Amino acid sequence: MSEENLKIERIHKGTVIDHIDAGYALTILSLTGLDESPDLMTIGVNVLSKKHGKKDIIKIEGVFLNEIQMQKVSILSPNATISLIDNDDVIEKKKVSIPKVIEKLIVCVNKTCISNSENISGRKEPIDTEFLVLEEKPLKIQCVYCDRIYNLEEITFISKEKIEKRVKQRIQL
Amino acid sequence: MSEENLKIERIHKGTVIDHIDAGYALTILSLTGLDESPDLMTIGVNVLSKKHGKKDIIKIEGVFLNEIQMQKVSILSPNATISLIDNDDVIEKKKVSIPKVIEKLIVCVNKTCISNSENISGRKEPIDTEFLVLEEKPLKIQCVYCDRIYNLEEITFISKEKIEKRVKQRIQL
Repeated sequence: MSEENLKIERIHKGTVIDHIDAGYALTILSLTGLDESPDLMTIGVNVLSKKHGKKDIIKIEGVFLNEIQMQKVSILSPNATISLIDNDDVIEKKKVSIPKVIEKLIVCVNKTCISNSENISGRKEPIDTEFLVLEEKPLKIQCVYCDRIYNLEEITFISKEKIEKRVKQRIQL
Repeated sequence: MSEENLKIERIHKGTVIDHIDAGYALTILSLTGLDESPDLMTIGVNVLSKKHGKKDIIKIEGVFLNEIQMQKVSILSPNATISLIDNDDVIEKKKVSIPKVIEKLIVCVNKTCISNSENISGRKEPIDTEFLVLEEKPLKIQCVYCDRIYNLEEITFISKEKIEKRVKQRIQL
């Protein structure tokens, strides 16, 4: 009894994110909220690629990324390419590009940073976070307010939507 | 320019989890820790299946599930099948089965439940959680200590390992 091939349908209209850094596809899906898409999605993780060693790839039917999702992909995988598919054809293919300054997307975890100041009512002041991109790969960014430097593994995205995961997990050591 | 097919290699040795409830593959990967596997993994989400409507499928090279991972799969997708692959052949295929009693795997979030009691030093008493499975699908389980009933969307798994996700997200409404 031979193991069947998983037949991966082409997508007809949607997005292909290719050349994702190996091991980052699931992080990208989770942090962009794309993991909640109700349509066909196929994902390859640690796929051997002749050019780049291992890479990840994501194909999502019926979805086009918005500006914030694109920025998140560029931060998580600066070599990724994004192809827009319509009528089974690639209508546009582009490499993501990381902005020189990343605004309103990442938290500065330095508690004394002005971006974390609170006013009397305890609510956040409307100071948007801003980070200079010092290096793209490996990522190195610096908070413009407190100068703290972060690498990729240290960053925390801001999410405006409360994405409640279906089933949670609690650490109990 | 036509959109290429994503060529999904068969796996040579590893596990295929098929007939996963649609939309649950990524949750399964995250809650079992399988998402950290360094080897080839292919995932189909919301794949149209003639028999069951939509389903998810996961193929993982070089990995066999342990007992806890199997139980988690059975809870998250009671109709899932697990095939073990070796030398390109299916050497075993089985349907997951949900245990009658789920032990040490799920948290009871009722603060007054005895499973959450703390001793003087503030550390957890060694009372293992235990839930009776009242219904498999949709899942309905009951804490044997405090009788509280949970459905699938309400459960929280216990994790013994601190899985630090690479990049985090913080909700900021």
